Amino acid sequence: MDAVNHQFKLAARPVGLPKPSDWEHTEAPVPEIGDGEVLVKVLYLSLDPAMRGWMNDTRSYIPPVGIGEVMRALGAGEVIASKHPDVAVGDHVTGLLGVQEYAVANGAAVMKVDTAVAPLSVYLGTLGMTGMTAYFGLLDIGRPQEGETVVVSGAAGAVGGIVGQIAKLKGARAVGIAGGAEKCAYVVQELGFDACIDYKAQGLDVGLGEHCPKGIDVYFDNVGGEILDAALARLARHARVIICGAISQYNATEAVRGPSNYLSLLVNHASMTGFVVSDYGARLGEAAQEMGAWYAAGKLVSREDVAAGFESFPETLLRLFRGQNTGKLVLKVGD
Amino acid sequence: MDAVNHQFKLAARPVGLPKPSDWEHTEAPVPEIGDGEVLVKVLYLSLDPAMRGWMNDTRSYIPPVGIGEVMRALGAGEVIASKHPDVAVGDHVTGLLGVQEYAVANGAAVMKVDTAVAPLSVYLGTLGMTGMTAYFGLLDIGRPQEGETVVVSGAAGAVGGIVGQIAKLKGARAVGIAGGAEKCAYVVQELGFDACIDYKAQGLDVGLGEHCPKGIDVYFDNVGGEILDAALARLARHARVIICGAISQYNATEAVRGPSNYLSLLVNHASMTGFVVSDYGARLGEAAQEMGAWYAAGKLVSREDVAAGFESFPETLLRLFRGQNTGKLVLKVGD
Repeated sequence: MDAVNHQFKLAARPVGLPKPSDWEHTEAPVPEIGDGEVLVKVLYLSLDPAMRGWMNDTRSYIPPVGIGEVMRALGAGEVIASKHPDVAVGDHVTGLLGVQEYAVANGAAVMKVDTAVAPLSVYLGTLGMTGMTAYFGLLDIGRPQEGETVVVSGAAGAVGGIVGQIAKLKGARAVGIAGGAEKCAYVVQELGFDACIDYKAQGLDVGLGEHCPKGIDVYFDNVGGEILDAALARLARHARVIICGAISQYNATEAVRGPSNYLSLLVNHASMTGFVVSDYGARLGEAAQEMGAWYAAGKLVSREDVAAGFESFPETLLRLFRGQNTGKLVLKVGD
Repeated sequence: MDAVNHQFKLAARPVGLPKPSDWEHTEAPVPEIGDGEVLVKVLYLSLDPAMRGWMNDTRSYIPPVGIGEVMRALGAGEVIASKHPDVAVGDHVTGLLGVQEYAVANGAAVMKVDTAVAPLSVYLGTLGMTGMTAYFGLLDIGRPQEGETVVVSGAAGAVGGIVGQIAKLKGARAVGIAGGAEKCAYVVQELGFDACIDYKAQGLDVGLGEHCPKGIDVYFDNVGGEILDAALARLARHARVIICGAISQYNATEAVRGPSNYLSLLVNHASMTGFVVSDYGARLGEAAQEMGAWYAAGKLVSREDVAAGFESFPETLLRLFRGQNTGKLVLKVGD
């Protein structure tokens, strides 16, 4: 092939928000594939808060991206060459494709998806790792019961918006926390949450008091910091707190802010449990089935916030940390 | 009766460590009892870190002690008058007797104990709420498996020393954390822990790395602060953290220090769960039975640190917060 493969490589470990010089925008020939491999033309890249963590040289659930390596990213695309028996040219797949226009992957490491059921980008959101994250975090750890109150931070974001919808499908009340009137309107009117607290407009403690008069039974945290503390102060007895992320802390240049109100766990016999979706690798099928059925029945609103232009990657990624996305942020890379 | 009832009442809400002027040492006549009540001559008072929390005017699992009220305390004593059919003069009982020499209680609210099985003071320690706290926190929340590593802070303290012993009885490894060589020697040599890290002599992170090469499976926290953070940094996958107390924070005049390393829960799929022993009110019988059997078989070392002199209460209580007790701190009030 004569096409050029544009890539973003990690040039330096960021301090605080990633800046342009932390990236190297390079060109390479589109590689040949070996036995068992496939070549994927990347069409969408998933932009996720977790990517910030992958850029740090710290021990975590996955090794950091090395300096000079193509930035790790989930993506969706079309197979344009295959030497794997189970994957054919023309198949649509998702996987860890990296921030590049063409990706070589083992055919067993990508997942085939059906664009007749849902548009390709949905497989990065509601029907992808984002949706699975919401599903397992809420249902396996949070275990909401009918009539319980589920509070979700980052409710207008990719994971948060799905968490509240699943909570409603399971008969719980869903209260979102988001920044700004527009996001809150989206959370209530489009996603169907019972309420959404605009933490920029209203004291969180007042809002939580108003919308959770019996306390919070399940709190799904995507943000950390003062929002986590405010939720801890309002826990009901036997509450379950799910630590899915801490976007407010990922670019901190000082120590992470720990939750001062953690002793609320003690007085309320409550728990705080963390996870990453890869912990549920063996059970993704269950989630795909139930989420797929809800989606097909029109019971899950799936909204992607689609940015365009491969070269905008560094700037588009920052929208996550500035709270500028509504729904799942994806970067459209090709047609 | 002509005897005088000396009492310590809460005179002011302490800021930081309780000071002498926060207490009022008063005398009152020994009260008459009504139907269903018993009069107990207090022989031992239990001094517990939780008492500091009861002195604050904050919403918690139990209402605060009011200004002018006798300070709340668990105690053990002898019944000297009874108008309750199930309790006789001469019975030994434990209960919330308060910091006073004579207590009136409902006969149904005290627990009869057998001083032929164990000395009275043991019913405030290993066979009392202290032991039950260790038992349920470790076994119900921590659920240690054979061969797992259990780390306990405050290991030379009342609860911590029992936690490690129960961990050993259940086939786990027990690693203590305590302040000072003498305490650590006690924890290993007398209580039988596998190891004890002297956090005053050695970097905690180094000590935990040395004694927990595969990480911490169960961490039982009595102290909070930097020790909690050090333990969080060393969690194994699926670790269980038990929040029993936070003695390092109880006298803080600034905000409680939250655990900066709480995101270790996320990367390790770990949980942090709090409790107070009263949550297990309905199950105290199970614990009393198993703990009693271990004690009778000589499998549980029970050490009380006995201070004497009712009037020394304010100063003796401070020993807890200065780390000056080894084993269960009790105040001997009478003979």
